[in-house]
Amino acid sequence: MNLPNADCDVITFGETMLRLTPPGLQRLESAVQFEAHVGGSESNVAVGLARLGLRVAWLSRLTLNPLGRQIAAALRAQGVDTSLVIWTEQDRVGLYFLEEGKAPRGSQVLYDRAHSALSRITPADLPPDLFVAGRSRVLHLSGITPALSPNAAQTARTAAQQAREAGWLVSFDLNYRANLWSATTAAQGLESLIQNAHVIYLPLRDAALLYGMPPEPEKTLVGLQARFPGKIIVLTLGGRGAAAIQPSGDPVFHPGFEAEEVGRVGGGDAFVAGFLFAYLQSQELTQALQWGNAAAAFKYSIPGDMPLFSRAELEKLIHSGGDQSLKR
Amino acid sequence: MNLPNADCDVITFGETMLRLTPPGLQRLESAVQFEAHVGGSESNVAVGLARLGLRVAWLSRLTLNPLGRQIAAALRAQGVDTSLVIWTEQDRVGLYFLEEGKAPRGSQVLYDRAHSALSRITPADLPPDLFVAGRSRVLHLSGITPALSPNAAQTARTAAQQAREAGWLVSFDLNYRANLWSATTAAQGLESLIQNAHVIYLPLRDAALLYGMPPEPEKTLVGLQARFPGKIIVLTLGGRGAAAIQPSGDPVFHPGFEAEEVGRVGGGDAFVAGFLFAYLQSQELTQALQWGNAAAAFKYSIPGDMPLFSRAELEKLIHSGGDQSLKR
Amino acid sequence: MNLPNADCDVITFGETMLRLTPPGLQRLESAVQFEAHVGGSESNVAVGLARLGLRVAWLSRLTLNPLGRQIAAALRAQGVDTSLVIWTEQDRVGLYFLEEGKAPRGSQVLYDRAHSALSRITPADLPPDLFVAGRSRVLHLSGITPALSPNAAQTARTAAQQAREAGWLVSFDLNYRANLWSATTAAQGLESLIQNAHVIYLPLRDAALLYGMPPEPEKTLVGLQARFPGKIIVLTLGGRGAAAIQPSGDPVFHPGFEAEEVGRVGGGDAFVAGFLFAYLQSQELTQALQWGNAAAAFKYSIPGDMPLFSRAELEKLIHSGGDQSLKR
Amino acid sequence: MNLPNADCDVITFGETMLRLTPPGLQRLESAVQFEAHVGGSESNVAVGLARLGLRVAWLSRLTLNPLGRQIAAALRAQGVDTSLVIWTEQDRVGLYFLEEGKAPRGSQVLYDRAHSALSRITPADLPPDLFVAGRSRVLHLSGITPALSPNAAQTARTAAQQAREAGWLVSFDLNYRANLWSATTAAQGLESLIQNAHVIYLPLRDAALLYGMPPEPEKTLVGLQARFPGKIIVLTLGGRGAAAIQPSGDPVFHPGFEAEEVGRVGGGDAFVAGFLFAYLQSQELTQALQWGNAAAAFKYSIPGDMPLFSRAELEKLIHSGGDQSLKR
Amino acid sequence: MNLPNADCDVITFGETMLRLTPPGLQRLESAVQFEAHVGGSESNVAVGLARLGLRVAWLSRLTLNPLGRQIAAALRAQGVDTSLVIWTEQDRVGLYFLEEGKAPRGSQVLYDRAHSALSRITPADLPPDLFVAGRSRVLHLSGITPALSPNAAQTARTAAQQAREAGWLVSFDLNYRANLWSATTAAQGLESLIQNAHVIYLPLRDAALLYGMPPEPEKTLVGLQARFPGKIIVLTLGGRGAAAIQPSGDPVFHPGFEAEEVGRVGGGDAFVAGFLFAYLQSQELTQALQWGNAAAAFKYSIPGDMPLFSRAELEKLIHSGGDQSLKR
Amino acid sequence: MNLPNADCDVITFGETMLRLTPPGLQRLESAVQFEAHVGGSESNVAVGLARLGLRVAWLSRLTLNPLGRQIAAALRAQGVDTSLVIWTEQDRVGLYFLEEGKAPRGSQVLYDRAHSALSRITPADLPPDLFVAGRSRVLHLSGITPALSPNAAQTARTAAQQAREAGWLVSFDLNYRANLWSATTAAQGLESLIQNAHVIYLPLRDAALLYGMPPEPEKTLVGLQARFPGKIIVLTLGGRGAAAIQPSGDPVFHPGFEAEEVGRVGGGDAFVAGFLFAYLQSQELTQALQWGNAAAAFKYSIPGDMPLFSRAELEKLIHSGGDQSLKR
Repeated sequence: MNLPNADCDVITFGETMLRLTPPGLQRLESAVQFEAHVGGSESNVAVGLARLGLRVAWLSRLTLNPLGRQIAAALRAQGVDTSLVIWTEQDRVGLYFLEEGKAPRGSQVLYDRAHSALSRITPADLPPDLFVAGRSRVLHLSGITPALSPNAAQTARTAAQQAREAGWLVSFDLNYRANLWSATTAAQGLESLIQNAHVIYLPLRDAALLYGMPPEPEKTLVGLQARFPGKIIVLTLGGRGAAAIQPSGDPVFHPGFEAEEVGRVGGGDAFVAGFLFAYLQSQELTQALQWGNAAAAFKYSIPGDMPLFSRAELEKLIHSGGDQSLKR
Repeated sequence: MNLPNADCDVITFGETMLRLTPPGLQRLESAVQFEAHVGGSESNVAVGLARLGLRVAWLSRLTLNPLGRQIAAALRAQGVDTSLVIWTEQDRVGLYFLEEGKAPRGSQVLYDRAHSALSRITPADLPPDLFVAGRSRVLHLSGITPALSPNAAQTARTAAQQAREAGWLVSFDLNYRANLWSATTAAQGLESLIQNAHVIYLPLRDAALLYGMPPEPEKTLVGLQARFPGKIIVLTLGGRGAAAIQPSGDPVFHPGFEAEEVGRVGGGDAFVAGFLFAYLQSQELTQALQWGNAAAAFKYSIPGDMPLFSRAELEKLIHSGGDQSLKR
Repeated sequence: MNLPNADCDVITFGETMLRLTPPGLQRLESAVQFEAHVGGSESNVAVGLARLGLRVAWLSRLTLNPLGRQIAAALRAQGVDTSLVIWTEQDRVGLYFLEEGKAPRGSQVLYDRAHSALSRITPADLPPDLFVAGRSRVLHLSGITPALSPNAAQTARTAAQQAREAGWLVSFDLNYRANLWSATTAAQGLESLIQNAHVIYLPLRDAALLYGMPPEPEKTLVGLQARFPGKIIVLTLGGRGAAAIQPSGDPVFHPGFEAEEVGRVGGGDAFVAGFLFAYLQSQELTQALQWGNAAAAFKYSIPGDMPLFSRAELEKLIHSGGDQSLKR
Repeated sequence: MNLPNADCDVITFGETMLRLTPPGLQRLESAVQFEAHVGGSESNVAVGLARLGLRVAWLSRLTLNPLGRQIAAALRAQGVDTSLVIWTEQDRVGLYFLEEGKAPRGSQVLYDRAHSALSRITPADLPPDLFVAGRSRVLHLSGITPALSPNAAQTARTAAQQAREAGWLVSFDLNYRANLWSATTAAQGLESLIQNAHVIYLPLRDAALLYGMPPEPEKTLVGLQARFPGKIIVLTLGGRGAAAIQPSGDPVFHPGFEAEEVGRVGGGDAFVAGFLFAYLQSQELTQALQWGNAAAAFKYSIPGDMPLFSRAELEKLIHSGGDQSLKR
Repeated sequence: MNLPNADCDVITFGETMLRLTPPGLQRLESAVQFEAHVGGSESNVAVGLARLGLRVAWLSRLTLNPLGRQIAAALRAQGVDTSLVIWTEQDRVGLYFLEEGKAPRGSQVLYDRAHSALSRITPADLPPDLFVAGRSRVLHLSGITPALSPNAAQTARTAAQQAREAGWLVSFDLNYRANLWSATTAAQGLESLIQNAHVIYLPLRDAALLYGMPPEPEKTLVGLQARFPGKIIVLTLGGRGAAAIQPSGDPVFHPGFEAEEVGRVGGGDAFVAGFLFAYLQSQELTQALQWGNAAAAFKYSIPGDMPLFSRAELEKLIHSGGDQSLKR
Repeated sequence: MNLPNADCDVITFGETMLRLTPPGLQRLESAVQFEAHVGGSESNVAVGLARLGLRVAWLSRLTLNPLGRQIAAALRAQGVDTSLVIWTEQDRVGLYFLEEGKAPRGSQVLYDRAHSALSRITPADLPPDLFVAGRSRVLHLSGITPALSPNAAQTARTAAQQAREAGWLVSFDLNYRANLWSATTAAQGLESLIQNAHVIYLPLRDAALLYGMPPEPEKTLVGLQARFPGKIIVLTLGGRGAAAIQPSGDPVFHPGFEAEEVGRVGGGDAFVAGFLFAYLQSQELTQALQWGNAAAAFKYSIPGDMPLFSRAELEKLIHSGGDQSLKR
């Protein structure tokens, strides 16, 4: 797919929240301090792409209060254009509480995102002249937005369709969230978005849950190729790397990089950023998987939600294949 | 009014939130850390009364998640009985963000309490056999609850009426909140609750806003005496102490104690706790004002929402009239 | 053993201290900040049982100062009844400093508990009408108390004997502390308490140190069965789970759950809470070991001394047998 | 002066440093923790103007390392365009250590800015096509830059001259720093910059030190009017407000707003931002002084170097003339 | 009095504790973090004198554990010789908890110093060859030591007597502590130490409490001159400076310096250090009072117990008479 | 080699910096807080030796400001004599920023040490009568100093030569730093220092980089024995322990101790301290390697740069060979 030049490389669309985490692995229930981070799947992708050198904007709806301003400022700090944000005096800023845990107590997420400004967005809120050729080359969105509310789902579908019609590449991360909707509802709710997408990402586990695919990555890719013809399908495999398939090609695979887990949240978003960055440059799936895996591994070592790496750091990781040890 | 013995001295009813405050007078907008406190007008009163030695329970509706459990635990720690809490898997725990500021930037409150569990309470949620003689001697509630939602208002009115009918003393803090409703709506919405109350508290400023009273405390008390016959009316005067009037008596006044402002939030609730404690013991307004003022002043010197004083500390303040200096 | 109904399920008796720990694995010697936790073997058990749903009270003697009040408040927060605490103006609140370390520098405990209020307790301080049928079903105590002072030892022995006579189950954790007394003195000092106990807990290592038992769990259990006839004997095996034996039964064993070590202190107390909870419900040793091991593993992942888990979390761990991973 | 339209409203030019401050009024000498802030006179002005709604860019030279990136990110977060920054692999990022103190120990600044990237800038580093009509309406710089090094001085002079020639308004804050150069050297070194400026700002104290002006504001303004004909001269008067004079007008004065001192550093820069914002809108000195004073007072209540206020907050302060108290 | 040369200028003798303070004016009772400081009246004096340039050693008895080592390290860091410390494996390190408060809640001290190593010192522990001519010029001790225990009192008396006999100047701060002993007991217990002292310090308040002196400083000085003939008597007057009298001279007075209270603890010790430093240099009471007051005022602005000033800072304060404002 | 008695056991010479590290594995780029540590290779060695019981002084040049004073105080606290420090009003205190990371993002060092006081030292600054017999027994220096500047290199060479001529043992850690100079330049620049040394230390990796040695430790030791005749050569092997060789002996080896990595920086310096301590006592290489390895392993478990262990702790590690587990 040849993407024409545009004012911007990528626009991502979705909800970003303020995350509140107790320090030192404390339980939420007894926490008297919280560390705040700004995080959202699609803005994490935007940050990763901006740090890798692309021109990126983030489209969303935010309540105009100090929490909303903090979110926009944090994204601007990372080089993301926030001029597309639709500000409102209504609704609220989504929050989530993350209790970080170690085995056998795993990390736990308590969402407090209901009634957020983005959950109240409607297609009429979308800027009327946004989805035109020359404005951007790519639209990226995820399966969280349609799970927020029917009107948010409708807005996401409208955006994807209009972007596709404008000749942009549509990139779609399924991002199934079990505590927002069931697998069956999700599979149905995501159908139209997938149809408008050119690239879709999902973990092997969700391919099984939503589409009944088998546990083998290769079979799953071939199965999804049949189920969603004409798409590039990217499958993440947990600690075992990632795999992908072209509409009429064979599965390709990259085993990933080792990482110690410092900040697991946002690893999948970092993967998408790395993948998309390399794919836009090379149109080559194996290289895109390599960059996606490098970005995810590097993110795992960074606290917070955002992938605060540089292009040079990922290049170094890819070339060395390992740890970047202390040099004084 | 003679109050019969009961299993419990006071039950307070209302919403308690988790408060999030940036440390060091930072702006909310750029905060990366928050300190958490548990606070709510009626539970603050409960804590104050429990620390002064009364048997106190707190009635509310809370979402059963780590934040809800934190609230209940914090109240139990202070000796408040939380067995009346109505737990639900639905809704959310109310939050508020407090940006502490110095002049000319004052402290600012950002409420995030919409859709909370208490805002969804209905009269049917009230324990069926609660409001009976012998269960408690006093019910305390405030004008925040009716501002949350129509059904919360209905529940508060039901509680006040049933408590009055059961022979309990009904104590009601008007607690007008300008960012929850307008003065006109509030005056109307509070009417029924005031009618069921035996004691009502309000600041001079709100007597003007809601009832068009003049700026002089004495005139206001006399005016309110006429407007709300049969009630004990307690008027707080900001830094100038407090005044009160019996249904057919003359205004009495106490000038208050000096305090450096460390934690202004909750000062009014501490006043109510001190007032109610002394009034239940002595049935005497001047002494009740003195204890109310001592409690408020002491609270001003304590961070957070809750009045973490002891009876001995307030006695010492009342007897000395001033600072309790460093003794080693 | 059939336990009759009572006002309370379990009373635990022992000393609770304020723990002070430097953050970030710093050395005590150069620490300029300390994090405070409330911890004591028997109150940790009380907290665990209360969080699992039992009615629990804690019996102790505490100095009436802010540190003593902090301890009582922390236990009340977790649902433990503190109305049995014997308050005194004398003596001091026990402290301990914990330096958390990694290999080869292990964690180190500096006790500063001499002259504490509990070390000065005498049998005359015990509430005269406490140890009667119907007041509680279980008394739990540990071998730390007799190590504190002769009068504390005498008080523990009195309590155990009276509880047994009142028909309560007596649960006794040997809890040998090498820096409080020698193995020989301990074996002698604990004899009377063990004789009054129905259930005793000890680690394999201490069975060797105090009673010369062999390193094999099975042989040790059989040996202790002979040495202490008529007791349920529970043996913890470090990272290898736990084992137990009925007075005339055969050893049973449970291999335990994997855990990453976040807060090792209090793991043994959590085990006792889990064991006792399940045993009281099922009278079944294998299930009790399973719950004890789940409770201990879960506690290992929680900072501080107290086992801040819920019944649902332990059930989930027992049913899944592993990590409870991040779900968003 | 009529300013034509341009792509940008204001460009500020100068050095920005990382500030390191011990928390809690500790002495630098015994600090084991530092709080970091991004601060620089000219970037503080840029931030203030951006937050008031203008389009602002910051021109500087920065070492491309994590500290340099932190500085640029912090400015972008506040809406300042950093695309003009000249990045270099050489030199270092300027630092300053601020020990905050109370009387009699005042706050103390330890500069560690020698050899910074900006001190090594030369006129050749300036973008060749920057100083042209239509690119910006205003250039703001300060007297710190010429104090850093001869080549930095030469670069500042070049920039001021080219901006003037391009028809921009040149705004110049004398910002005399006694620990960078002497008053005599400063007076001489600033001469050419003042000659190219349209608006100059200085405190009364420095008018005396550098130009031998008398202690009376009016006489100083008239004296400076004569000494620097054709300039708007703005005089700050410490806690007593500010005064100004047009090239051929009479002195005007505004008494300022009261403030509690939370963050004194950056108050002068906030003043410049407020003044310039209002002057560009109204071309009216009294109003500009009022906005300058409001901005300075508001900044005094904000920690750190940057003026994190909004236009609405300053408007509210100007209209009310005082504290913005707690409203819930 | 002519003091011969010696290896050391001043030896101070007394107890030093670890202080634990909750941050942010929190109550001790609800603190979950503590900041640690090293403080003791006599070691504070030692630190002040060392920082002013004298050669100073500190004599004490300390338990050899991490807390004892922290105390010694903190004093060495400030240039105090700790080689005279008598280390023991026994006893404990004294602690004190300081709750910092604002009016009406004042700061409160909770001592936990009973059973400390110094309280168990006996005269036999004193180094046998310490109190000889040429070893030091001055011994400083305070009235806290005799309040700790009878044997500590006996040791202090022995030290004072031997130092006097060796021709050293004996400096004695009465330091009456109401929560260690009563005024009557103290007056009696301090008598022998005062008799061996050449210089004594006490606040006006304690002159009234212990010796029934009138509230006027001049009358008190003259009264004490008669009561304790042959001594230099130094009287501190709270916020109103200090006064002193020679054995046969007239009272002299210095009004003190203004200070904002950041760290009030240790102000009296700083006064003694400033006084003694100037007196040893000038033998002149007025100058000594001036330095004492400057040292006390400067200490008030410094967190913690130790007077972390420099000689240059005190000189600057004395010469300017006021605040040392921010200069950049 | 027989070392005569002296006033001091070891003098170490080199630069010490203030280290600034973001807490919680955050990126430097987004850090808003920093933890400060005092660290320098040669002062780390001094601290280690002082804590093991030797008399140690540190020779350096420091700027007389709060940062310089903090460095000297931190070393005095650990028992290091700082009276040899050459104080200057000029230059600056070296800093370094350490970003601690986990794989694949390794820890990264950002040096900010250019233009430091030590980099400006000249041989003329050395105390004229320092390098004489009886003043010290050992001089320790490292290869960092000659990398700082030509004059620092000249000063290091002068010191080493004079110490050798005075009959001291000269101990030299090559400490090659790739971001200060290249391997070729380093090999040349260190030649003269090595010639004056009696003992040299280097990692296997640098033996390859600087001298082209093979990857086998034994071959490298033999190769270096030939290359640098007459020296004791000590080779560190990363996680595999260390090896050494006498001028005419055979290689000896010690496998090291396991450690979890808490504070890797300063591990090599701890090794040198342990080695030198044991070698000075025993003149025996195997024992010296054992102590060096124990010291390095123990340091790995301690945050910060300085080896805060005791002699007893290392002895215990050496005798047990493993973890020192929690005992209560």
